Amino acid sequence: MAVYTDINDAELESFLDEFDLGRLISLKGIAEGVSNSNFLIETDQNRYILTLYEKRTPEHELPFFIELMQWLSAHDYPAPMPQADRQGRMLKRLAGKPAALVSFLSGFSVKRPTAQHCREAGSALARLHLAGAGFHGKRANQLGHAAWDGMFAECSEAAEALRPGLKAEIAADLDRFHDWPKDLPQGVVHADFFPDNVFFLDGKFAAAIDFYFACNDAYAYDLGVCLNAWCFEPDGAFNVTKARSLVAGYEAVRPLSAAEREALPLLAHGAAMRFFLTRMIDWVSTPAGALVKPHDPLEYVAKLAFHRQSAGALGLFDQ
Amino acid sequence: MAVYTDINDAELESFLDEFDLGRLISLKGIAEGVSNSNFLIETDQNRYILTLYEKRTPEHELPFFIELMQWLSAHDYPAPMPQADRQGRMLKRLAGKPAALVSFLSGFSVKRPTAQHCREAGSALARLHLAGAGFHGKRANQLGHAAWDGMFAECSEAAEALRPGLKAEIAADLDRFHDWPKDLPQGVVHADFFPDNVFFLDGKFAAAIDFYFACNDAYAYDLGVCLNAWCFEPDGAFNVTKARSLVAGYEAVRPLSAAEREALPLLAHGAAMRFFLTRMIDWVSTPAGALVKPHDPLEYVAKLAFHRQSAGALGLFDQ
Repeated sequence: MAVYTDINDAELESFLDEFDLGRLISLKGIAEGVSNSNFLIETDQNRYILTLYEKRTPEHELPFFIELMQWLSAHDYPAPMPQADRQGRMLKRLAGKPAALVSFLSGFSVKRPTAQHCREAGSALARLHLAGAGFHGKRANQLGHAAWDGMFAECSEAAEALRPGLKAEIAADLDRFHDWPKDLPQGVVHADFFPDNVFFLDGKFAAAIDFYFACNDAYAYDLGVCLNAWCFEPDGAFNVTKARSLVAGYEAVRPLSAAEREALPLLAHGAAMRFFLTRMIDWVSTPAGALVKPHDPLEYVAKLAFHRQSAGALGLFDQ
Repeated sequence: MAVYTDINDAELESFLDEFDLGRLISLKGIAEGVSNSNFLIETDQNRYILTLYEKRTPEHELPFFIELMQWLSAHDYPAPMPQADRQGRMLKRLAGKPAALVSFLSGFSVKRPTAQHCREAGSALARLHLAGAGFHGKRANQLGHAAWDGMFAECSEAAEALRPGLKAEIAADLDRFHDWPKDLPQGVVHADFFPDNVFFLDGKFAAAIDFYFACNDAYAYDLGVCLNAWCFEPDGAFNVTKARSLVAGYEAVRPLSAAEREALPLLAHGAAMRFFLTRMIDWVSTPAGALVKPHDPLEYVAKLAFHRQSAGALGLFDQ
């Protein structure tokens, strides 16, 4: 959460002059999203979020994300809607960076989701999967299971230093993932549908943001990401009530196939691996003393251990 | 610019329940102010800024700042207006920190002020001095001239390391300040009236924020702070047109006495010393590799050199 690029009011005013969105009234850097700079812009007509894309988001992939958000907004999914300038351009440049202006969305994320929030999140994820069907764009999941062996090679020694014995445990997990489920229903997934990225109003799902990990992958994998992100308590316990609520919410909108249900525990285990590996790599590459601390990889070490021990028996469907 | 304390939606909702300000619709951490955590809060009635006071702002001084902002708002000065809860409390606690909710103010700060902005800023500073007259609170300027010898003792070696010879130059400046002007008109000053803290709309002054250095001191010293903050170009040149505009804007609202006019160059030199010293101390105390970089002390080394060489002849009044 940071603002990496400072923005100049004069540059911003001439940027806004290329749109028909009114004159600038307020500009505030906001702490939203992890890797880009975001600003809340108010004009005399409306409010918008301006994103400057920092180098972590590859520029050639930006059209995929912008067009996906446009597609979702146009298909009644409450996602940020990219605004086009008078020439129809949505992806522009500002302060030397790629930049886009999207609609402001009401709602706020919850820090401690209840089972009811999990149910709403599950339905919202399924709605996203249905709304994204038919979207023309394609983007491989660069942080998917095919990448994990290579990612682990970058951080296996640091993992062993973090906790002796961890390297062998992770290596054994990765072996299991070599038999990764194929032929599951695929489509556009969010791939980072964490509580931070989901807004609620009065306890109901209001909007989803931060589509910058979206890609094509198995729908059920996206649900596996959510099981990790929404259904563990701060003390590390897996809350099966929340997990059942999440899955029931999902299935109320998009029922899972038998193959998806069967694969879900392994997909959740793999999703825990993906977040462990990226956090571990961030941890290794962050200089000591940095004021912006990366996420603690140990949270995901514990989730990996849970999935390893539960060995596919999450108790999601056997009520 | 950072959000140091993460805020929990549940805590925030119960905090807001103690006010009559409506229900929460949006919450965003914002990059405003240097040393506290700020959030933009939207309820179904209005928008507010929530500030959590981090330890750099001493808790026992918070009532002074809160009551000053309330006084200024009540005297038609566009400052953040603290909101009272149902029990009349404005200074509260949230997430283990002292906290206050203030009104949201439209407008935005300018990065490259024009002479016209300087004129507006000068008038706005004088309005602030007049609006603050009669305020009962008292707070000494802890970063005023009496503190500078002690502050330099903390960073003189680092200054010498920054640029050989600098230590002796600063020591000579400090000697000059021992004959600091007395008996100038005093009152509540902002003491940090930088472009960052001044909002404009359509080129006109709209509001001032960040009163957390406000104190009792000579009014003309506050104008000296502004001469440094508003009237130097990015290349280090002193723009006398901007300086004259600033002072003329000030005098259009509150004319300076002959003693204030005469003292102004020395006060501006001293104000440059104050910002040099705090930046130098921050520089020394920031760990290498920190992602939040402190302000560069060299900017104020150059301003000090300018004031030293101009030796009181700023050309402000001899048009």
